[in-house]
Amino acid sequence: MNIAVDAIYPSDTVVIREVGLRDGLQLVKKFPSTAAKQDWIDIDYAAGLRHFEVGSYLPASSFPQFADVDTLIGKVATLPGAFSTALALNKRGGLNALAGAADEILCVVSASEAHNMANARRSREDGLKEISEIIALRDASARKPVVTVGIAMAFGCSIAGKDAVPIDEVVRMAVACRDLGADVVSVADTVGYGGPTQVRALARALSRELGNMPIGMHFHDTRGLGIANAAAALDEGVRILDASLGGLGGCPFAPAATGNVVLEDVVFLAQSMGFDVGVDVEKLMAVRAILSREMPDEQLYGQLARAGLPLAA
Amino acid sequence: MNIAVDAIYPSDTVVIREVGLRDGLQLVKKFPSTAAKQDWIDIDYAAGLRHFEVGSYLPASSFPQFADVDTLIGKVATLPGAFSTALALNKRGGLNALAGAADEILCVVSASEAHNMANARRSREDGLKEISEIIALRDASARKPVVTVGIAMAFGCSIAGKDAVPIDEVVRMAVACRDLGADVVSVADTVGYGGPTQVRALARALSRELGNMPIGMHFHDTRGLGIANAAAALDEGVRILDASLGGLGGCPFAPAATGNVVLEDVVFLAQSMGFDVGVDVEKLMAVRAILSREMPDEQLYGQLARAGLPLAA
Repeated sequence: MNIAVDAIYPSDTVVIREVGLRDGLQLVKKFPSTAAKQDWIDIDYAAGLRHFEVGSYLPASSFPQFADVDTLIGKVATLPGAFSTALALNKRGGLNALAGAADEILCVVSASEAHNMANARRSREDGLKEISEIIALRDASARKPVVTVGIAMAFGCSIAGKDAVPIDEVVRMAVACRDLGADVVSVADTVGYGGPTQVRALARALSRELGNMPIGMHFHDTRGLGIANAAAALDEGVRILDASLGGLGGCPFAPAATGNVVLEDVVFLAQSMGFDVGVDVEKLMAVRAILSREMPDEQLYGQLARAGLPLAA
Repeated sequence: MNIAVDAIYPSDTVVIREVGLRDGLQLVKKFPSTAAKQDWIDIDYAAGLRHFEVGSYLPASSFPQFADVDTLIGKVATLPGAFSTALALNKRGGLNALAGAADEILCVVSASEAHNMANARRSREDGLKEISEIIALRDASARKPVVTVGIAMAFGCSIAGKDAVPIDEVVRMAVACRDLGADVVSVADTVGYGGPTQVRALARALSRELGNMPIGMHFHDTRGLGIANAAAALDEGVRILDASLGGLGGCPFAPAATGNVVLEDVVFLAQSMGFDVGVDVEKLMAVRAILSREMPDEQLYGQLARAGLPLAA
């Protein structure tokens, strides 16, 4: 069965993807039970979210938090109109993802050669080659999930430096991904180095080169500019944004820093900018109680959760 | 002596005003000693800041944190190129400010009638009248500090509601302030209701009506959009932004919420957008140690302080 990219990412709709179940849990020692994750998905879904990055195909011995990835994909499949994403960091992960039922496979390559070598122990070239193999497997598969490529360190690299990743280089990588057959490209500010001016420039350059291909952006609030970057992205026509409930997720390169941009605050931002994202942000915040119970040592972020919504009238 | 508004707010420069010493201390029970405040100013100044809102003319019995306002104005006066601001909430405050040596007197009126009545126990009309009296006193004074009017609740009101303050009304208030002789108008999102789209619309409308008059914006990060709002303001040509070190300052209408937008993060934002604000943000962060020592119970905010600056090269 072909999964049409337009069905997951309609061109006229802002999609906010919940990545808390994957990126948000990437580094944690203690993580929610499968049942708690299912409740998390249910509350997100009841609040209006439809896009769930639920896990990663990694060895359960090292990443027990993702051992239930197929169960969660199954959970999302029971929810009408909802889509699941699983991360596949290599060909083995890609094979597992294709054997499973995810609607979207996320592959990752870094825009920074130094980071790709440090993180994946291979060159970007080899990373792209492995992605092309996963895409070939997908193309040969009966079930054809969407393949999205996340380009990490697209706004600067904490190993090579903030100016080590020129926009042209990111665009070149994105075009390479498209040419390999990726359906979506998502550029990530993995370490919170970017600012809104850079976001605008990259969004424009990508849209110029990629035309109608869906472009996503993935921000971390590491240095406080995450929401400003999301605003700039929306302003420039980016229609896919990642975020995690409570701002879960850290960064191995900035240990004390906060994680993904806060989902609740991104929803509030998008709504304040006039985008109908179809999400009830107050319902969404009920997930925080689950996270506090299941991961009492994780700090949850989010200003809206402190202050509440503005008084309506 | 006339203090030229162009000297304080050159039209070609982004000015970031430290309001932590005033707005940041408005609600605190424990506050830094005068010596600690002087150290705070010294560190800010060494880092490159030049604009200091240092206190308010209020009864020392109720607001002991501002009893040293004249001492701090004197401190700022010893620093070449630095400017001091004192808040005057009524005519008595205005007289005190004129008797002192502040470079700028800040008066306040709310864009929301309900908030002005609740906060100042008078109508906006009466508030504007008192401001005009302060301006008349200033005009008749030998020393002529700049008079800036802050328009509170300019992005929605936590008493009257988020849609209770139309942009036209804020513009009408701003024009009234100019016509009374105010030198600068600064619009405040007192309760963090605004978003970047609203900021853009208001900035454009104000600039259309006020021409070359300096326009400031004052954001609170109550609901997470403070930095995105600052980015939108800079994008629209606003050249005066308020912020407080460590995000000090709360809001009586949202008790658990954070305060003013974080000074360090606003500096980082402005620099990331290519504005030369002349501030060394790493030097600036040294103030946090003073605040932690003097006000151990106050939570300090700021993402940059957690994560540090991006790696240069």
